[in-house]
Amino acid sequence: MNRFTIAIHGGAGTILKKNMTASAELSYRQALQSALDRGFSVLQNGGSALEAVKQAVMEMEDCPLFNAGKGSVFTNTGTHEMDASIMDGKTLEAGAVGAVKNIRNPIVLAEKIMLKSGHVFLGGEGALDFARQIGIEIVNDDYFFSQFRFDQWNAVKDSDTFQLDHDIHLKDKKFGTVGAVACDQQGNLAAATSTGGMTNKKFGRMGDTPVIGSGTYANNNTCAISCTGNGEIFLRVVAAYDVSALMEYKKYTLKQAMEEVVMKKLLPMEGDGGMVGVDAQGNAVMLFNSAGMYRGFKSSDGLNEVAIYKTDSH
Amino acid sequence: MNRFTIAIHGGAGTILKKNMTASAELSYRQALQSALDRGFSVLQNGGSALEAVKQAVMEMEDCPLFNAGKGSVFTNTGTHEMDASIMDGKTLEAGAVGAVKNIRNPIVLAEKIMLKSGHVFLGGEGALDFARQIGIEIVNDDYFFSQFRFDQWNAVKDSDTFQLDHDIHLKDKKFGTVGAVACDQQGNLAAATSTGGMTNKKFGRMGDTPVIGSGTYANNNTCAISCTGNGEIFLRVVAAYDVSALMEYKKYTLKQAMEEVVMKKLLPMEGDGGMVGVDAQGNAVMLFNSAGMYRGFKSSDGLNEVAIYKTDSH
Repeated sequence: MNRFTIAIHGGAGTILKKNMTASAELSYRQALQSALDRGFSVLQNGGSALEAVKQAVMEMEDCPLFNAGKGSVFTNTGTHEMDASIMDGKTLEAGAVGAVKNIRNPIVLAEKIMLKSGHVFLGGEGALDFARQIGIEIVNDDYFFSQFRFDQWNAVKDSDTFQLDHDIHLKDKKFGTVGAVACDQQGNLAAATSTGGMTNKKFGRMGDTPVIGSGTYANNNTCAISCTGNGEIFLRVVAAYDVSALMEYKKYTLKQAMEEVVMKKLLPMEGDGGMVGVDAQGNAVMLFNSAGMYRGFKSSDGLNEVAIYKTDSH
Repeated sequence: MNRFTIAIHGGAGTILKKNMTASAELSYRQALQSALDRGFSVLQNGGSALEAVKQAVMEMEDCPLFNAGKGSVFTNTGTHEMDASIMDGKTLEAGAVGAVKNIRNPIVLAEKIMLKSGHVFLGGEGALDFARQIGIEIVNDDYFFSQFRFDQWNAVKDSDTFQLDHDIHLKDKKFGTVGAVACDQQGNLAAATSTGGMTNKKFGRMGDTPVIGSGTYANNNTCAISCTGNGEIFLRVVAAYDVSALMEYKKYTLKQAMEEVVMKKLLPMEGDGGMVGVDAQGNAVMLFNSAGMYRGFKSSDGLNEVAIYKTDSH
């Protein structure tokens, strides 16, 4: 039996202890642990990496703390447009959805696109039509309302500002995204990523989250990767697949490959953020070039860790 | 002065001489030559690779023979939804648009997204709003009408069939996409790709064309690539960036890298199609695993070639 592992993130950016209350910090740590536990229990029961990452992401999509699913930020028109993608490292099958509204769990839709649509990537109203046809849970706009997100939006909505994060101070960049990667008992890998995007976004803007190769990638021969950060830069760097390519072509370890991409490719281009990864031996790496990243991992050899700041142990 | 080169494609698939009339073949060859000439003259006048690929793709978007711009196929609802992307190998800047309607030249919109939006990837109605705001040419649905495309659509629209190509025989797979890659006098590279997608497509389906890394990629250190084929597979293989990664990490030549991706990665996954590429020395490669690919290249050392079938000289 392979060592099995799940690693997750809940976004990266200027996340500093001095700006966080003790109770907010506790809430984040608890939410991360819940997502880890839910994904890990799938693995422990012999379930697939694919199911584990989906379940972990669903847990974070249902939590209002994270910018994905229920906690998605407001767009320029006061709606919520979400992106998500999922990839199965065993088959290289993938599903992705961009700029979709009214879906409770975009990661579930991404998986259905992978399994049922005959396609990989659906977007906008069309993706919602597909969701209706296959019976995915659809919710009203009210479901996504929270005073916190609404206030964030109000602070910038009359400006031409896109807010890159879920903080009302623009100088504090936080990239709200959630993601998970896993290695199951059979050594199969999978990755999943989901986001509400940027506060006050317009023009149907999508970042790296719905893009296979940039925000999400999984391949049993190399690794599974889920990214969070300045999506435009992650897109231009083809960040997730680049980690895999470095492992496949240069025989880098997961950690070496992630360091190359996060520190040497993304950082010089102001690609703030980070990523979580696992390889087929169940090694997990969580790496970021910003002040913090909500993150955690749990593995069958008894390791369990949840962290937020750079100065945290991992 | 660097050798300068442009290479283009107008789609790949089951393109067989026995199914082609002499006059249709001549029309395609003339259209390819016009696109080559237009892009090449930009390079000859000292213009950038970026401008050259844009102009070559515009020429094909304006030609009803190709499934892009004016010649875009019908969607399931009788509309035309187009995808395009462009990337500048000098700066690694990129622009992409997915599932956009009523844009005469989606490649021009992709470039404006790159230069003016602060983003990389816009989609759907939002992308059209952006186009209106910056004054990109918008056309009525009628602009895209042709009896040929309408008949194609009618043949399949009441079925649940997605038509992967611009042929009414489903067994004949043709992937209608146009693209260009160029190396300019300064050794800068660029790539551009544009498509109307699949006949009778629905659900806001996008293929690899709007996806940086899959359908389009350019990097002065390696190559510029534009793909055409079974978009779902090209997405899962991250085809365009994979060529670059093989050159950067395994020191493959452009030709070796393209052969690896087109023949050893795409073909076994039924990723029918091909790609055109250039490197920073102005070498061009046009490679496909299907029966044919509309293609051509022209370079400053006097080479000029237009070809359709596998048995053509190049």
